[in-house]
Amino acid sequence: MEHVDLLISATWVLPVEPHAQVLAEHAVAIAQGRIQAILPTAQALQRLQPVQHIERPGHVLLPGLVNAHTAAATSLLRGAVEAHALPHWLARMERLQQRWIDAEFVRDGTELALADMVRSGTTCCADVHPYPEIVAQCVAQARMRACIGLPVHASSNAWADSPDEALDRGLRLRDEYRADPMISTALAPQGTLEDAMLARLQRIADELELTLVVSMAQDTPITLQRLERLGMLTPLLLLAQPSQLSGAELELAGQAGISVAHCPHANLKLRMGVCAVTELLGSGVNVALGSGAPAASHSLDLFAEMRTAALLANGLASPQAPTLTPHDWLKIATLNGARALGLDNDIGSLRPGKWADLCCVDLQHVASQPVYDPAAHLLYALGRDQVSDVWVAGRALLEQGRLTQLDSDDLRTRARRWRERIADASHS
Amino acid sequence: MEHVDLLISATWVLPVEPHAQVLAEHAVAIAQGRIQAILPTAQALQRLQPVQHIERPGHVLLPGLVNAHTAAATSLLRGAVEAHALPHWLARMERLQQRWIDAEFVRDGTELALADMVRSGTTCCADVHPYPEIVAQCVAQARMRACIGLPVHASSNAWADSPDEALDRGLRLRDEYRADPMISTALAPQGTLEDAMLARLQRIADELELTLVVSMAQDTPITLQRLERLGMLTPLLLLAQPSQLSGAELELAGQAGISVAHCPHANLKLRMGVCAVTELLGSGVNVALGSGAPAASHSLDLFAEMRTAALLANGLASPQAPTLTPHDWLKIATLNGARALGLDNDIGSLRPGKWADLCCVDLQHVASQPVYDPAAHLLYALGRDQVSDVWVAGRALLEQGRLTQLDSDDLRTRARRWRERIADASHS
Repeated sequence: MEHVDLLISATWVLPVEPHAQVLAEHAVAIAQGRIQAILPTAQALQRLQPVQHIERPGHVLLPGLVNAHTAAATSLLRGAVEAHALPHWLARMERLQQRWIDAEFVRDGTELALADMVRSGTTCCADVHPYPEIVAQCVAQARMRACIGLPVHASSNAWADSPDEALDRGLRLRDEYRADPMISTALAPQGTLEDAMLARLQRIADELELTLVVSMAQDTPITLQRLERLGMLTPLLLLAQPSQLSGAELELAGQAGISVAHCPHANLKLRMGVCAVTELLGSGVNVALGSGAPAASHSLDLFAEMRTAALLANGLASPQAPTLTPHDWLKIATLNGARALGLDNDIGSLRPGKWADLCCVDLQHVASQPVYDPAAHLLYALGRDQVSDVWVAGRALLEQGRLTQLDSDDLRTRARRWRERIADASHS
Repeated sequence: MEHVDLLISATWVLPVEPHAQVLAEHAVAIAQGRIQAILPTAQALQRLQPVQHIERPGHVLLPGLVNAHTAAATSLLRGAVEAHALPHWLARMERLQQRWIDAEFVRDGTELALADMVRSGTTCCADVHPYPEIVAQCVAQARMRACIGLPVHASSNAWADSPDEALDRGLRLRDEYRADPMISTALAPQGTLEDAMLARLQRIADELELTLVVSMAQDTPITLQRLERLGMLTPLLLLAQPSQLSGAELELAGQAGISVAHCPHANLKLRMGVCAVTELLGSGVNVALGSGAPAASHSLDLFAEMRTAALLANGLASPQAPTLTPHDWLKIATLNGARALGLDNDIGSLRPGKWADLCCVDLQHVASQPVYDPAAHLLYALGRDQVSDVWVAGRALLEQGRLTQLDSDDLRTRARRWRERIADASHS
């Protein structure tokens, strides 16, 4: 009998790799935080000697979702600025951020968002926000996984006076976490940087093999043409929240093999337009899913984003266009996200050798009955309350709906305090 | 001290009428199933002597949602036919329905759907499905409220051999429930009926003041031009699941003051196109919200439909177009639904004299923190798990997340049995 730390058995296992596989009555065996094997539960019980066996009848086990673009700390501002088109919303949001963002704000907002993410099945997020060292600390304490964006701002802010200072601090942070398998880093140019700085960031990205996140949710977003001219259209590029791309842009993006973080809720709310996922995938772009800043989207529920993305892609397509299947969407929300962050050898699917980052979903809820096709229900019928358990590197962060590393009551108290301060100040 | 049966106090009360009102620390007083008063909680405790006082700190109390178009029993088929554009999906679904629909199917499917609706805050639904007498029985037993569509099919089915027989049986059902305040009825022509039958239905609708439901989710949907020619464009008309209307159609619909049941999930999933809510409202149409058949949408979660509808209306509008506010959307999901069913004097808002049909939502979830604007969170940040309590005519159907009238375990068992029968038959 082979020893493993943990065996999780469920009615269905959706490994994402191989594509579209649905394994009935299977189990995932975990040792030292990594997936050891995926096998029929009956076999597992004969062959393996697990320290712990978790049984989840009526549940489906799948890779934890990857939120490929967020700014977690802005959760403290969700609902503070009414919905408006992007320029107006950005202007008001930036005023609030300039007034309130400090290390304490970033800690409280990030932890609140991490709790929200874990409860809705997300095991890894790519974050871009000032004070990335605080974000990294919060993620490490919460035992989650993240790709921490190292923001390089065009203008000064509370965290850094200049692009050079920001880059310096960012690279030191990168060195600090270099040996940490849970925390990776990405370069994140912000605002209107000069060509020389962008080219320098690209050289660093190439040298260190870092993802380079460029967000289109900006006052004057950078064009694909400029990115191409600067040699930035590479597989390291993660283009966040793009609007609809033109045919020429699609071709450029596809040939370069860039990644896109599609954030349908935030884009729709801010009237930015949404990219056409089916066409992007067709052209060779790696499409991942994100929430964007919760200050815009309110929610960090990636299952809800996935449903909106699928309905939108399907509903706005011509009747003849190919339909992305539920399995295609699950891949977008997991493995494609991992690939966008350069982590697809480590996470994003249930494959032996990868980290055991999983979520478990209860399909026994009356809203998911009966179950003909578990993948279709994950896409179309899921409430985040059905996420029962979440593991990152084999450690349970959510156990039957209860957070193990974060204290909801404490988070609520801190959030309420921020709301009182911010609302009082804006009324005075 | 005045006697009342029930006093429910919450941190926020959103009565929907008057428009956009947010009442802090208020309570709803209920006597004999109807709303007696809405007043500050402190005052209520001085003036009133309630038999029961339910306190919900951190919660928001609002009218129960009205699902203006569904076919509840089809919940047993959700996921049984893969997503396809409407004609293909309809053909396959109709084969399944012809094979399986009988009184038992309708009972099990309807009860499953009612459980789902109550758990997600819906207190009233408008249903169109064969065996309406079974649907009415299920609703009555579940103590919910419904407008039961009396289907008049062009072709014969298990329930009725001819349009005449269907109409006859429908009108007898209508007579049976005439004195029941919980069950109302509507006429529901189905398929390609002849002009004479449609004109006859319109005469009956006029005479009895019945809503007339015409669904556009059909193989050969009826045109607005034909409806006009037959004199069917009146405030009694509820047009369900329309696609985008042309300018001329918008004008016709608006002048006639018809209602529309907007079902974004089902329409997007079946590639039917979606109507433009902002334009419909602008032209004078009463827009309500529905789920459509759960066999298409999978889900009966109207909060999720509301979010999709709002994101879609906002995201696809021009940057200059007016934005519907969260309060506008809450009105669409409640009072406009009631008006579409001719029930706006009785339900749809929290106004003294109306039935006490309410839902209570917990905003203390980490995903809804902090709360600057409870209406915006109801629209953009809500999971159906946050619906804590539901009352219909003052009776609790959901108490702190537990169903009082329906047995989830039993519903699950029956749903599983149907799935086994249906899946076995389709594999053999």
